[in-house]
Amino acid sequence: MHPFDHSTPGTAGMTTIHLDDLTPGTVIDLGRVTVTREEMLDFARRYDPQPIHLDDEAARAGIYGGLISSGWLTVSLCMRQIVDGFLGRAASLGSPGCDEVRWLRPVRPGDTLTYRAEILEVTPSRSKPDRGIARVRYEAANQHGEPVLRLTGMQMLARRPVGAAAAGTS
Amino acid sequence: MHPFDHSTPGTAGMTTIHLDDLTPGTVIDLGRVTVTREEMLDFARRYDPQPIHLDDEAARAGIYGGLISSGWLTVSLCMRQIVDGFLGRAASLGSPGCDEVRWLRPVRPGDTLTYRAEILEVTPSRSKPDRGIARVRYEAANQHGEPVLRLTGMQMLARRPVGAAAAGTS
Repeated sequence: MHPFDHSTPGTAGMTTIHLDDLTPGTVIDLGRVTVTREEMLDFARRYDPQPIHLDDEAARAGIYGGLISSGWLTVSLCMRQIVDGFLGRAASLGSPGCDEVRWLRPVRPGDTLTYRAEILEVTPSRSKPDRGIARVRYEAANQHGEPVLRLTGMQMLARRPVGAAAAGTS
Repeated sequence: MHPFDHSTPGTAGMTTIHLDDLTPGTVIDLGRVTVTREEMLDFARRYDPQPIHLDDEAARAGIYGGLISSGWLTVSLCMRQIVDGFLGRAASLGSPGCDEVRWLRPVRPGDTLTYRAEILEVTPSRSKPDRGIARVRYEAANQHGEPVLRLTGMQMLARRPVGAAAAGTS
């Protein structure tokens, strides 16, 4: 069963995930993505033009022994998996931030990363009753099962509308 | 005086910043960048396709009252400023992670962000005498002087080679 089968039915037959639909301990499979050399170089040229991300020869001579992905590309690809596998169906209100971003191992051209999310904590806002924050741990592992990325995000979400809640529980 | 005027002269007449050249409290101006609507949309399409980043109408109806930048674009642009203004001249060995990423205010199309870095802490490695970690706080403010982003990065850097250190102090 998908962890959000109890979420509120939306107007178009889709379900919309609200804060109230999240339970600490729930794990969400966010799918996998292969990091191509081309995307690594494109991203690095634009946002992180360090030799370890761009220059084969310099990278080979360095401590990583070859080109590695910008850590921000690994995070950006995580964000895409989050949107496709979770937030795209959720009443997202943006995020105030995230904590403990850790690049645990180098990501290399052609690596396939598997992403997952785990709901850590769900906290309704005290001052704004229509919303709240979910703390979510995101993790990625490479094709060898080795962890390469971990971070804890704070996701602001709308609460389930009162009418919808009443309909769901009557 | 540039904060790194005492760094080690490199082979090509350039200076290379090593861990030993960093002093807690030093502030580095990382310049400014304007976030265009086009780049916001490009980034969002690829990495963060949420309506608040992509869909004018949906964004206008939402709590931000209009399109806002993906927080990861604001961070990626910060990384570019870091490379151009600091790491590009440094003996960078990558980063194990960062902490306390905070998106303090929405970034909107056409906003001009001014980035700065402050060295918080410099810690030589105990196990690997050739390197160490600098903790660096990065901040961005918009054209109204309002803070929009804050994060604390851990930057691994090589230590100044022994020969170079001896030359510099004899």
